[in-house]
Amino acid sequence: MIEDIVKACRSYRRFHQEQWIEPRTLRELVNLGRLSASAANLQPLKYIISSDPNLNARIYPTLAWAGYLRPWIGPDEGERPSAYIIILGDTEIAKNFGCDHGIAAQSIVLGAAEKGIGGCMIGSIERDRLREVLSIPVRYEILLVLALGYPKEKVVLEDVGPDGDIKYYRDAQDVHHVPKRTLDEIILAENG
Amino acid sequence: MIEDIVKACRSYRRFHQEQWIEPRTLRELVNLGRLSASAANLQPLKYIISSDPNLNARIYPTLAWAGYLRPWIGPDEGERPSAYIIILGDTEIAKNFGCDHGIAAQSIVLGAAEKGIGGCMIGSIERDRLREVLSIPVRYEILLVLALGYPKEKVVLEDVGPDGDIKYYRDAQDVHHVPKRTLDEIILAENG
Repeated sequence: MIEDIVKACRSYRRFHQEQWIEPRTLRELVNLGRLSASAANLQPLKYIISSDPNLNARIYPTLAWAGYLRPWIGPDEGERPSAYIIILGDTEIAKNFGCDHGIAAQSIVLGAAEKGIGGCMIGSIERDRLREVLSIPVRYEILLVLALGYPKEKVVLEDVGPDGDIKYYRDAQDVHHVPKRTLDEIILAENG
Repeated sequence: MIEDIVKACRSYRRFHQEQWIEPRTLRELVNLGRLSASAANLQPLKYIISSDPNLNARIYPTLAWAGYLRPWIGPDEGERPSAYIIILGDTEIAKNFGCDHGIAAQSIVLGAAEKGIGGCMIGSIERDRLREVLSIPVRYEILLVLALGYPKEKVVLEDVGPDGDIKYYRDAQDVHHVPKRTLDEIILAENG
């Protein structure tokens, strides 16, 4: 059921780095993005995939991880993603990518979750540096990086408390907690 | 499997309007959006849902349908959506909604597809008019409207042809065809 997969599909930030993800698997995941909706069916999204440990080591430092967990600045060597899918916007097809990358990314991470692969969508990227690492022509805008791997942490959902604080946190057992606004808070009006 | 649901999850524009969708079903779908990723976990999205035929009749004319099918300008009475989910951005929580609405919308339409409900994400909206119809305070930005119903048309995917034309079209049998770029076209580089 979609609901179970959506619930299982958390943002993971620590992985079994040694567990390789085949390029073929990444292609299957990109295919889910490909088959998803695109504004005016323009399909301006392009992809670069990497499951190459050497290249991954150069992609990793261009990404900012989990602002609320400072001083933690990201996973240690050994717990880093085994693969990346970089989502680009082709400016020769569209100038504005709307939320196409969100639509595609969600299909991809749901497909990953179904395979037991965890992901984190990262928008906080040193774009110039990543462009250099991957030799991305200026034609393509860097929209989002999906960091992927087999999760090495537990993530639990909980309701936002009365103080309204949405910041995720790790408890003493190193479990990652994610406060979510309740359905009653986010549905403003119901007509039926 | 996610792949089957992603494939089944096409943009439908003609529906069995008389088949009602319960508000409870819409709440379940919004819950899938609620549980999806949000940048910095801010969760700025808010929702208005309608399965009220009278209100639906006032929402419908604020939406632009299927630019490539002119002179067809949208479904006739009797084939219109039975429900709407309006996705708003709460500007008191964030000023920029990134692609959060794409992420949430995709979870919602996949959950709908699983239930046999088709949807169309519509971004071309007469926003001032819709704001008036739904009495939406200026605090909320109108991001996306999901039109939902039980599909009354057949939609098929095909590869983009050599001319590169991505415009969807209806054939003589009134089947809706959607050309998609191939995986080889959209994956710029594979490293693994």
